[in-house]
Amino acid sequence: MEMESVNIEKASSFLSGLKAKIAGIARQTKKVAMDDPRRLIHSLKAGLALTLVSLFYYFQPLYTSFGVSTMWAVMTVVVVFEFSVGATLGKGLNRGLATLAAGALGLGANHLASVSGKTWEPVLIGLFVFLQAVASTFIRFFPTVKARYDYGMLIFILTFSLISISGLRSDQILELAHKRLSTVLIGASTCVIISIFVYPVWAGEDLHKLVAQNLEKLGGFLEGFGDEYLRTFDQESENERTSSLVGLNSVLDSKSKEETLANFARWEPGHGQFMYRHPWKQYLKIANLTRQCAGRVEALNAYLNSKTPASQEMQCMIAGISTGSGEVLKELSWAITTMSRPTSPSPHIPNLKIASKNLNSLLKSDFCEENTNLLQVIPVATV
Amino acid sequence: MEMESVNIEKASSFLSGLKAKIAGIARQTKKVAMDDPRRLIHSLKAGLALTLVSLFYYFQPLYTSFGVSTMWAVMTVVVVFEFSVGATLGKGLNRGLATLAAGALGLGANHLASVSGKTWEPVLIGLFVFLQAVASTFIRFFPTVKARYDYGMLIFILTFSLISISGLRSDQILELAHKRLSTVLIGASTCVIISIFVYPVWAGEDLHKLVAQNLEKLGGFLEGFGDEYLRTFDQESENERTSSLVGLNSVLDSKSKEETLANFARWEPGHGQFMYRHPWKQYLKIANLTRQCAGRVEALNAYLNSKTPASQEMQCMIAGISTGSGEVLKELSWAITTMSRPTSPSPHIPNLKIASKNLNSLLKSDFCEENTNLLQVIPVATV
Repeated sequence: MEMESVNIEKASSFLSGLKAKIAGIARQTKKVAMDDPRRLIHSLKAGLALTLVSLFYYFQPLYTSFGVSTMWAVMTVVVVFEFSVGATLGKGLNRGLATLAAGALGLGANHLASVSGKTWEPVLIGLFVFLQAVASTFIRFFPTVKARYDYGMLIFILTFSLISISGLRSDQILELAHKRLSTVLIGASTCVIISIFVYPVWAGEDLHKLVAQNLEKLGGFLEGFGDEYLRTFDQESENERTSSLVGLNSVLDSKSKEETLANFARWEPGHGQFMYRHPWKQYLKIANLTRQCAGRVEALNAYLNSKTPASQEMQCMIAGISTGSGEVLKELSWAITTMSRPTSPSPHIPNLKIASKNLNSLLKSDFCEENTNLLQVIPVATV
Repeated sequence: MEMESVNIEKASSFLSGLKAKIAGIARQTKKVAMDDPRRLIHSLKAGLALTLVSLFYYFQPLYTSFGVSTMWAVMTVVVVFEFSVGATLGKGLNRGLATLAAGALGLGANHLASVSGKTWEPVLIGLFVFLQAVASTFIRFFPTVKARYDYGMLIFILTFSLISISGLRSDQILELAHKRLSTVLIGASTCVIISIFVYPVWAGEDLHKLVAQNLEKLGGFLEGFGDEYLRTFDQESENERTSSLVGLNSVLDSKSKEETLANFARWEPGHGQFMYRHPWKQYLKIANLTRQCAGRVEALNAYLNSKTPASQEMQCMIAGISTGSGEVLKELSWAITTMSRPTSPSPHIPNLKIASKNLNSLLKSDFCEENTNLLQVIPVATV
């Protein structure tokens, strides 16, 4: 009797634990979907692409022309379909071109080996595969190759090995190569078409927004900092400041994300306000300056936290400068967002220059780096 | 006659251009190999693994048992073999487990569809594939999944689709699944064995070295800064400072590299001084503090560049503090490298505290953040 009640208790505690876990997962799912609803759409798109390609298995006439090779189309879709258009295009082109090149070379290697006679054929092919793998793996370490063609090199090794080794076992190697190439092309173009025409996600647009957003965050922080500075010892505002500092940290940590996006963006065709060969590198420059600026502002913030107040006059000046800088940065961010030339030079800038000069002569020391940095940002922003 | 000489000229200029290009590539090759000689060894290892696996094609008894599926072993080797042991293990385990799980589920889906009759079978399978692709693609966006199991999810989608779709066309689906699983396991274990036993590259060791190195760079910069500060207007030293600032920038930008390494390191078994479940996350904490500190030091450096000299007394103090901090950081870096507890508390620290207090009372303002940051670093470093 007691045993039973213990068992029931155990079961109920297990059930409630399970319930909590499921609720946790549900909450996380919702969060992931809410953070960026395009993720849900992307998942549906991936399902659509896969289903489309698997139609090759369903219809007899399609299947008979490709046979088991149809599987390459499915594989290509799974591997190539990425979140943004740029990433999908980059991978698709890499895969298609690498398959083409490696297939041709593999056929060549095979022919070379086969004319050398039955005994030497496997040895030669083994040697080719080894040398090719060593060379290609090494080439993958080249920075330029790594950034854009890493996936292509991988597929090159793969296809070359498969084609040249398969030659040992099959006489229809030409047909094999041909089928592999066409199924890969079918898979890759399915991905590219769906990613471009069904709710496209442009990496370039994301980069554009991210850079503008970071500038805006920095501006917002500086504006807030100006107000804040005058009431440093007011504990109530602590929370608010922490949250804007988190924003600042996200600005500081966005480097690798920006670089990945810029890399993808370079694969993208023109779309919307962006033409093909949009100067994506300029965005990286702005982003770099923003990050430098954010690093300095963070140091400023630490100074604020150290709670050693400066003179009244200096306080006012610093607050004025940082509020002004914040406004200018926000203007810049707006200019980037709308892709308009900022009303150059901003009316704030002369004021800021004067203020910083005053402060400088007052203290002969501090804080001028903030402003010089600001001036650095301006010219680049007029993309 | 003239035509000919123009042609010859053209050809020779083309040849010299080609020569320059080849020389450039050769130089780059040498640089890539010299920067990290393990890259060359890695390439040879990859060639070895691929050749070993392709033996399955050469020997009749091996080939008859697996047939065309041998190709999966080759594919697995090409895709799974990575630079460090952790990355290879992580990918290998992901691939093996995902193939197992997806294979089993795919068989189940196939069985379910086949009992529902000939008309409904393709519809049901299409539905399963679609739903599975949507769900798995979405799960890949979860941060925890993305960090460690992204590749596994990809292989899951792939295997599930292949197995369940192939069921429409082949009656030996069980055999297909079994062959696919065993060849993938053969390929993955070849990679893992070679990467562990032939000149292993441990991600954990790299992380360890990188963190210590960054701390050392920062220390070196601060020491140099101390000397530098006293002769700010000496233009000769400009070059040297720039080069150490480059070092500082590499510290600031190492975040994503550290995170990747820590991620790989968690897959690695115990080796050398590192046991399994070494506290890799602590390294990330130290690295984060190092980076924060570097950010502040960079701001200091900008201040130095602004060339507004402070009073003589203050200059001496700042120089003293930064040299002292630099020494302490170097001590810490050494302690991490040798994995010994630093002679805690370092004899420098009380001196530094006094100096920073003096400076503080002298100026009631500046630079104390540098020191508080230093104190933050200390406790974490006693891993």
